[in-house]
Amino acid sequence: MKTSALSKLGQRTEAPPISWLMQLTLEHPQLISLAAGFTDNESLPVAETRELLNEILGSPKGRRSALQYGTTAGDPHLRRLTADRLLKLDSAGGTSFSASARKISDRALDVRLAPRLIPGAARKFYSPERMLITSGSQQLLYMLTECLCDPGDIVLVEDPTYFVYLGIVQSHGFCCRGIRLEADGIDLSHLEQTLEALRRRGELKRVKMLYLVSYSQNPTGITTSFVKKAAALATLKRFERAAGHPIYLLEDAAYRELRFAGHDVASALAAEGADERVVYTGTYSKPFATGVRVGFGILPKPLLTVVLRVKANHDFGTSNLLQQLLRHALASCRYERHLTELRRRYARKAATMTRAMREHFPADVRWQEPEGGLYVWARCPKPVKSGVHSRLFQSALRHDVLYVPGELCYGNDPTRRKPNGEMRISFGGVTETDIRAGITRLGATLRELL
Amino acid sequence: MKTSALSKLGQRTEAPPISWLMQLTLEHPQLISLAAGFTDNESLPVAETRELLNEILGSPKGRRSALQYGTTAGDPHLRRLTADRLLKLDSAGGTSFSASARKISDRALDVRLAPRLIPGAARKFYSPERMLITSGSQQLLYMLTECLCDPGDIVLVEDPTYFVYLGIVQSHGFCCRGIRLEADGIDLSHLEQTLEALRRRGELKRVKMLYLVSYSQNPTGITTSFVKKAAALATLKRFERAAGHPIYLLEDAAYRELRFAGHDVASALAAEGADERVVYTGTYSKPFATGVRVGFGILPKPLLTVVLRVKANHDFGTSNLLQQLLRHALASCRYERHLTELRRRYARKAATMTRAMREHFPADVRWQEPEGGLYVWARCPKPVKSGVHSRLFQSALRHDVLYVPGELCYGNDPTRRKPNGEMRISFGGVTETDIRAGITRLGATLRELL
Repeated sequence: MKTSALSKLGQRTEAPPISWLMQLTLEHPQLISLAAGFTDNESLPVAETRELLNEILGSPKGRRSALQYGTTAGDPHLRRLTADRLLKLDSAGGTSFSASARKISDRALDVRLAPRLIPGAARKFYSPERMLITSGSQQLLYMLTECLCDPGDIVLVEDPTYFVYLGIVQSHGFCCRGIRLEADGIDLSHLEQTLEALRRRGELKRVKMLYLVSYSQNPTGITTSFVKKAAALATLKRFERAAGHPIYLLEDAAYRELRFAGHDVASALAAEGADERVVYTGTYSKPFATGVRVGFGILPKPLLTVVLRVKANHDFGTSNLLQQLLRHALASCRYERHLTELRRRYARKAATMTRAMREHFPADVRWQEPEGGLYVWARCPKPVKSGVHSRLFQSALRHDVLYVPGELCYGNDPTRRKPNGEMRISFGGVTETDIRAGITRLGATLRELL
Repeated sequence: MKTSALSKLGQRTEAPPISWLMQLTLEHPQLISLAAGFTDNESLPVAETRELLNEILGSPKGRRSALQYGTTAGDPHLRRLTADRLLKLDSAGGTSFSASARKISDRALDVRLAPRLIPGAARKFYSPERMLITSGSQQLLYMLTECLCDPGDIVLVEDPTYFVYLGIVQSHGFCCRGIRLEADGIDLSHLEQTLEALRRRGELKRVKMLYLVSYSQNPTGITTSFVKKAAALATLKRFERAAGHPIYLLEDAAYRELRFAGHDVASALAAEGADERVVYTGTYSKPFATGVRVGFGILPKPLLTVVLRVKANHDFGTSNLLQQLLRHALASCRYERHLTELRRRYARKAATMTRAMREHFPADVRWQEPEGGLYVWARCPKPVKSGVHSRLFQSALRHDVLYVPGELCYGNDPTRRKPNGEMRISFGGVTETDIRAGITRLGATLRELL
């Protein structure tokens, strides 16, 4: 007799790398973890949250409804505020961030090419009727993918990409193909080649979507230009006839609001043909408070209908109290004020980290200055390996410092070997003192090996 | 070309009946809905929640951690409090509720047979290490079922059962067999017959679990006796060799704390052999506040490991702020005090409803007096039908009153026809005035037809 009665999904699902990394943190109490994707602890909006909750629970009108069930799609006011905010962001095309004085020419190009004003017809796609509220954007990634893919189906992902998404793919028995990244997003010719190769092999019917973490990407920090999003969408469209069905673009904008340098970029929602093909997900957890798990998505209507049915089975709606908290944070501008402070802090932390890296890392370790998000992505010179079994990783552990081995961010793509010389180093949750100490330790480790 | 690229799950998932019922409510503004499973609005713990959140967000120690990520399994303090609370409930065997003066002999029997003291060896199964915190117990129902069942697998359910669970089953292409209900839980001989029939047909390997809503069941209000839970577990065990794998008992205790008459019953966790086979799920949403979605589960260790991996993909942890709220509500006894008040209110509402039913319903409509939960389950005399297409349902709508047609609570079991003469009538969310008015209208509808 078998010892368990697990389904294929249950048998397949591997332990997420993050739990193993957290276990290491527990086993090494002196460890400085530059691995965790935690957000800045000092700037959590404690006072604001307290004020807002007192207002909500003190209001004769709203206090009871905040503690009662809502609808599966989520609070209509929060959806309206979110849709309006997105339209405003996308209409602005590019927002300037004074924190950085660096000149970023490809971003400047982006602003010119992005739509400064969304045309009237397209404005209606930014609608509360096309939106749902979720328990963090993670939940939408899960639900959308289970609504689109069967085991064996293929998701196109950035190479590297967000490793928890790779966990969803692995768990369900989906496959992935990694599309190479350039400084402004995926390599469009590699996207084209990949689709063409799949077409030739008769596998295009298994391709359901392209997943892009398009703003200050986790792990690389890269922001995809609007031009590339629009071009990627057009490329997918060209292969649809051969696929026999739509191929969706899933745009994960989790880090969009955590930009502290350069310019914002319009989302794929503003691109030609987006209304029927683009799913846009965002979150309030990272920019506001990670203990408050509220995300959102904008979807083509037929997909939204299905995802809402599945959400009804998952949990029939995200906590109304948390939704009211975000609704009032947005409406009262406390959200916006908090964001300004948060960006200032992350800009400083990122600068502290890269300054320490310049001081302590060997010269042939390379990275791009982050303009947002929580991570620096560093490349070791060949033939240095950074993987979980590498001398570097083990030696870093002995020096009491932890990073995310880059290999964990690459999907199981049979068409290439996994790169194994990169590190995701986070400045999000650690203090500036620990950033300096952690980078000093990591630098010492690297110098020993190089 | 297909118009969508949905997965099998996406294509299969039907609209949940509740959204259709809610739509009807919107279309008929004068309607009194006795269909919604909402909880009492007046007694929502507004003041308590406000106090608790001020304490949490005012505490120098806890205020930041409440707004930061927690672990996937959930807050260790909340898990400890929950495990202790469950052990205490189960050790008591039966708690007396003074609200009812009725003599309930099978409950009294239950108390004698339930373990008054959990043996030392079994106490360790009530452990925070075997527990996870979820976004309502619904999320655990979803995750556990996807971890155990593949399309075509069979779940044994009560006949009738919780219709949202049937939605999960339908969506994934699982099958179900309904086990008949008696006054104190499932008909054990029918369970035996069903398993035996499946064994003879070689289908036992597809049977993964038995799902019981064991306290004040939704929809019937029936509480399963401890004896029956223990016996059901033993029966499942006997068929495991033929099945080739464990067959789990999933005990859904969502309404356990909403008992206002009779006695509590020990959970299946206290039964022989429970540690490796029983999954127990509960929720704080219904007893505390439905806008605060916090549930929990106790699972055999090997299953917990897998469910935690899947939870990491779903949302990597339930909102820490909500968890801290419940933790402090429990620790400060505000939860317990709120529960006392809530039980008093539901006892009164249930009494108001059944009094009105005795006054206005034809004598041959039958029901059992509820002792907990939110529902009365009423049976129409043959040949009256209560289904969505029935004259009764349509006529009730014209009288501006809505109930849940009983047929929606029966799974698609090919071995029997769905009963179609019952109504789930909720006293949870409606005011006492509306309970009286709604029952008057429904009574008038019934008298017209009978």
